[in-house]
Amino acid sequence: MISVGIVGFRGYSGAELERILLRHPGVQVFLMEHRADAEDRPRPRGFEGPPRIPCSAEAAAAHGIAAVFLATPPEVSMELTPAFLSAGVKVIDLSGAYRLRTPDTYKRWYKAEHHQPDLLAEAVYGLPEFYRDKIAGARLISNPGCYPTAANLAIRPLVEAGVLGSDLVVCDAKSGVSGAGRKPSLKTSYCEVTENFSAYSLLDHRHVPEVLQHSGLEEPRFSFVAHLLPMERGILETIHFRASGIKSAEDLLEVYERRYAGEPFVRLYNPGKMPDLRAVQRTNFCDIGVRFDPPTGRAVVVSAIDNLVKGAAGQAVQNMNLALGLPETEALL
Amino acid sequence: MISVGIVGFRGYSGAELERILLRHPGVQVFLMEHRADAEDRPRPRGFEGPPRIPCSAEAAAAHGIAAVFLATPPEVSMELTPAFLSAGVKVIDLSGAYRLRTPDTYKRWYKAEHHQPDLLAEAVYGLPEFYRDKIAGARLISNPGCYPTAANLAIRPLVEAGVLGSDLVVCDAKSGVSGAGRKPSLKTSYCEVTENFSAYSLLDHRHVPEVLQHSGLEEPRFSFVAHLLPMERGILETIHFRASGIKSAEDLLEVYERRYAGEPFVRLYNPGKMPDLRAVQRTNFCDIGVRFDPPTGRAVVVSAIDNLVKGAAGQAVQNMNLALGLPETEALL
Amino acid sequence: MISVGIVGFRGYSGAELERILLRHPGVQVFLMEHRADAEDRPRPRGFEGPPRIPCSAEAAAAHGIAAVFLATPPEVSMELTPAFLSAGVKVIDLSGAYRLRTPDTYKRWYKAEHHQPDLLAEAVYGLPEFYRDKIAGARLISNPGCYPTAANLAIRPLVEAGVLGSDLVVCDAKSGVSGAGRKPSLKTSYCEVTENFSAYSLLDHRHVPEVLQHSGLEEPRFSFVAHLLPMERGILETIHFRASGIKSAEDLLEVYERRYAGEPFVRLYNPGKMPDLRAVQRTNFCDIGVRFDPPTGRAVVVSAIDNLVKGAAGQAVQNMNLALGLPETEALL
Amino acid sequence: MISVGIVGFRGYSGAELERILLRHPGVQVFLMEHRADAEDRPRPRGFEGPPRIPCSAEAAAAHGIAAVFLATPPEVSMELTPAFLSAGVKVIDLSGAYRLRTPDTYKRWYKAEHHQPDLLAEAVYGLPEFYRDKIAGARLISNPGCYPTAANLAIRPLVEAGVLGSDLVVCDAKSGVSGAGRKPSLKTSYCEVTENFSAYSLLDHRHVPEVLQHSGLEEPRFSFVAHLLPMERGILETIHFRASGIKSAEDLLEVYERRYAGEPFVRLYNPGKMPDLRAVQRTNFCDIGVRFDPPTGRAVVVSAIDNLVKGAAGQAVQNMNLALGLPETEALL
Repeated sequence: MISVGIVGFRGYSGAELERILLRHPGVQVFLMEHRADAEDRPRPRGFEGPPRIPCSAEAAAAHGIAAVFLATPPEVSMELTPAFLSAGVKVIDLSGAYRLRTPDTYKRWYKAEHHQPDLLAEAVYGLPEFYRDKIAGARLISNPGCYPTAANLAIRPLVEAGVLGSDLVVCDAKSGVSGAGRKPSLKTSYCEVTENFSAYSLLDHRHVPEVLQHSGLEEPRFSFVAHLLPMERGILETIHFRASGIKSAEDLLEVYERRYAGEPFVRLYNPGKMPDLRAVQRTNFCDIGVRFDPPTGRAVVVSAIDNLVKGAAGQAVQNMNLALGLPETEALL
Repeated sequence: MISVGIVGFRGYSGAELERILLRHPGVQVFLMEHRADAEDRPRPRGFEGPPRIPCSAEAAAAHGIAAVFLATPPEVSMELTPAFLSAGVKVIDLSGAYRLRTPDTYKRWYKAEHHQPDLLAEAVYGLPEFYRDKIAGARLISNPGCYPTAANLAIRPLVEAGVLGSDLVVCDAKSGVSGAGRKPSLKTSYCEVTENFSAYSLLDHRHVPEVLQHSGLEEPRFSFVAHLLPMERGILETIHFRASGIKSAEDLLEVYERRYAGEPFVRLYNPGKMPDLRAVQRTNFCDIGVRFDPPTGRAVVVSAIDNLVKGAAGQAVQNMNLALGLPETEALL
Repeated sequence: MISVGIVGFRGYSGAELERILLRHPGVQVFLMEHRADAEDRPRPRGFEGPPRIPCSAEAAAAHGIAAVFLATPPEVSMELTPAFLSAGVKVIDLSGAYRLRTPDTYKRWYKAEHHQPDLLAEAVYGLPEFYRDKIAGARLISNPGCYPTAANLAIRPLVEAGVLGSDLVVCDAKSGVSGAGRKPSLKTSYCEVTENFSAYSLLDHRHVPEVLQHSGLEEPRFSFVAHLLPMERGILETIHFRASGIKSAEDLLEVYERRYAGEPFVRLYNPGKMPDLRAVQRTNFCDIGVRFDPPTGRAVVVSAIDNLVKGAAGQAVQNMNLALGLPETEALL
Repeated sequence: MISVGIVGFRGYSGAELERILLRHPGVQVFLMEHRADAEDRPRPRGFEGPPRIPCSAEAAAAHGIAAVFLATPPEVSMELTPAFLSAGVKVIDLSGAYRLRTPDTYKRWYKAEHHQPDLLAEAVYGLPEFYRDKIAGARLISNPGCYPTAANLAIRPLVEAGVLGSDLVVCDAKSGVSGAGRKPSLKTSYCEVTENFSAYSLLDHRHVPEVLQHSGLEEPRFSFVAHLLPMERGILETIHFRASGIKSAEDLLEVYERRYAGEPFVRLYNPGKMPDLRAVQRTNFCDIGVRFDPPTGRAVVVSAIDNLVKGAAGQAVQNMNLALGLPETEALL
């Protein structure tokens, strides 16, 4: 039994981590209390959940914790990471703190300085379908953003297979509200969201550089717009492009089949069928469907995940399994 | 006081027509009972609504009805229209029956024969911002589809101004559920829609030819995907393209300003702001916002309407006002 | 044309006041800027809304304002009211500041001191169906709470008619989220509310004393529980009681018919039909339906309003119409 | 490994049964195709689910099926049950077919004849907290209705402990839409339900006799009203009564503590806290919270379940575990 800790367990990703890890037969979970935590959710008598310990490298050591999940804002992650690493505790960070490669890129997209260039260089990007081996040996795993997880799983095989034509590649992305976190704000208040829908961060969402970095697409030809859905969880991305070297929907699907043969968490749909968000909610799957119009070469790919699972906590546990030598799918199927 | 009739008043567009017309000082409304009607909504005592009469040219004549709204499926509209026209009653049809120009096009997109080529040729497309004069003199007005209303108002000015580059033009469209009508179906059942989101009719939605016909875009370069939002009303379309001859968001906005100066139902947003669906619900406005990235030429336009108002009943009343010589905005502001 | 001001126009009740008053032919609206205001909603170019002026008795005087609406928290209402009254401006307060009769009652239910006993004594309770005459002559009108409006309109006629048996009278009340105001909080965050439902303030909601005060019921026999619905607007109250002296549903309905004959904003349903929240949303109606079981004497009354209209802004405008000598239903039908 | 079959696997309860049973280590599931089945939900390639076999006693025998779940309408359950029983297959029926004790009671509440009085008499009511021993030996288990499960678990301990005063006992019940099943109807269409709320079956819901039968309450003093919540899953019941022999909330809670000591699926809340529907969704728990007002003796109990789990499929699996000699909580915690 390996001990692990969750920092930020009161947030939505943190609560999802607790839920997943409680059914993991190979780990013992600790909830690490952090000063910036939000309000607790009431729990019934006798169901108070895992033990709570302070959030510190000392407490981690005292409880023999092998890895911590940081479900915290980037600035908190940057503050906590060095001490955990020094104490020999692996860090799986769910924030954006270590996702980009250089302080300059970080500054452009996050509008803030980054003072840990070594950790930026060291951090392994936790997308197992592409970096499984590196993840297995990493001390610091940067868990991908929710939008980039769905985008890279759909776009990178297209780039690798050389089937993207030269036109604009459009990723029109829609997310449920839980992606914005549990901290109250006007933007995520019930009456502002229900029966509403809006676009935001048009072309400049801070998740864009993650897609560019790992898909191989270049910024001038990539149009990414995020939207807020009036629902709790799920991300669906509609990717429009002109295909080259493809003659049928089956051809397009085969690009994914070849790339993802044996992958436990990518599922494909037969031509004519498409994933919806119900298909992936509360699962660690990324579901992909394709549409192709042979006469004109227009293609559309739909990619769907649960933003709190494959887009956050589930993928983090997948990464933990790899990093701690546990079966990759444990607690996730 | 001019008399008008609503066929299909129990459906969502029909109910919206009733609501709008009841506050119109220049018309007297009649609800025309049709055999295919759905279930009534309970009404309180003493609030039973406008008088009900049969759905026939004779009843229309007997009550001096000058125009009827057909909020009915295409096949019902085709069945009813000739008799009303022969009786000298103007027809404003909210179905897709008369939106396309030829039986061949109709057959391709609606998968059914069309046996009234003369009426297809005669029908005036009821998009006042572009066909105001023709509408004023029409006997048969074909009210535009909801998706094409938002799309054409956003795209046609770009085509006219020559600012669309040569890449793919993407219209990623999202609609509330009321667009599917009031007839019960699994697809529009509460438990299938809530907390869900999905793409449908990828590249082959039957509203596509209306956009091509009136925007001037050609099919091979136009990628249109419809999506079902977990909400009741509203359409938001995100249009991605590479712009040419544009240097700033202000330039792009100016294309719309020039085209829509004096238009009562098109509203623009300052760069940096975008319409959401709340802004247009229960109004006849089409709201448009723009985003432009000068270094790369990427542009995004967001167009929002209420599918039941500017996308159906409101625009139908706007057309009625024009066709009957009433003030265009009456009952709509 | 009479000038009126709205304080708190960025909140939900304030926005609803603006919407209603803009279609009122007899008044000119001013938005009064208050330091505690929330964030603005983006407005399209050229649609910036009514003129904005400071929130002060001086500004009110300068613009000839006859009445102000205070859509503010109780403590702000208490701070602003005396100066407006001294300046001869009528005050229609939508908060709970002046709804109870004595500082002691206020202290018990609001857990705070009240230092304006004279204003408490002077304030007229703005429920027109019961206090129409007093409202017409009032300087200070205390607009009823949303729950008590639906409750008193349903319960007081039963008390007056003597048809309540001696058992417990239960008012099980459910409200949409907008009743909690626009200020962000965890409790009203989208992800906490959607697909959720909960009871709150069981037996001790601060609206209870308003029901006791105006219905004549006594606390020991009145069980009131509030619930939060996963929706934006509307209150539905289910009132269970054992009836006495009633033989049929028609008898029960007649109690309301007699009491509300000629009332423009109370609507009744035939036995076998019941109002739902759709019937009253965006209207100033209170809809009432009844169920009676003759063999056992069990009775249920359902009362429905829009909490932002008859439960707040609409009733406030109704009160304004009475207080300023305008037609009572102006802008409300 | 024991084989079991699901009839009606495409409905909401059936799908939930599949989901739960797939994680049950002791059973092998078969989906039994019935002619009246609804449309399939699309499944990804390679994830087609359990094997499908015909719905017949022969097929059950051929696959060694020990028990079948009937997630079907009452009339289908009545048609299928005798043959399965004759073939030695245990039946766990989720419909209302066998919940009442006599054909007369059935006729009064279901408005239909019942021609299997012997099966009515034989069927064991599957509420394990009260009938655990009988369930273990039953051939035919009638799974309780969703509303009665929440009601009986909250009310019967009060009756047993003699703490209900003589006044009316009110159960104000609210349910998510999935309780109405997957068959499309206007009543459960998205646009009719969202942002709406309504009362239905006031005093005459067909679940009432189940509550009377198992709680010991008598009809004249029990007021039950069902309501439709704009959400997918969950039932919350608010039970109002005047208590006798109770001095504090702790006393009231103790009634439940004593009755449910050791019960794995009933959870209690400390005074001052209350369950919401989030607490129980996708779980087999029934959560109970209490409120008591000592000076007046008024009491309120809140009972919450997931209507598809403890109110249907979860409880059915709990019953299966008991009937097949498997650990009661298997697949349910």
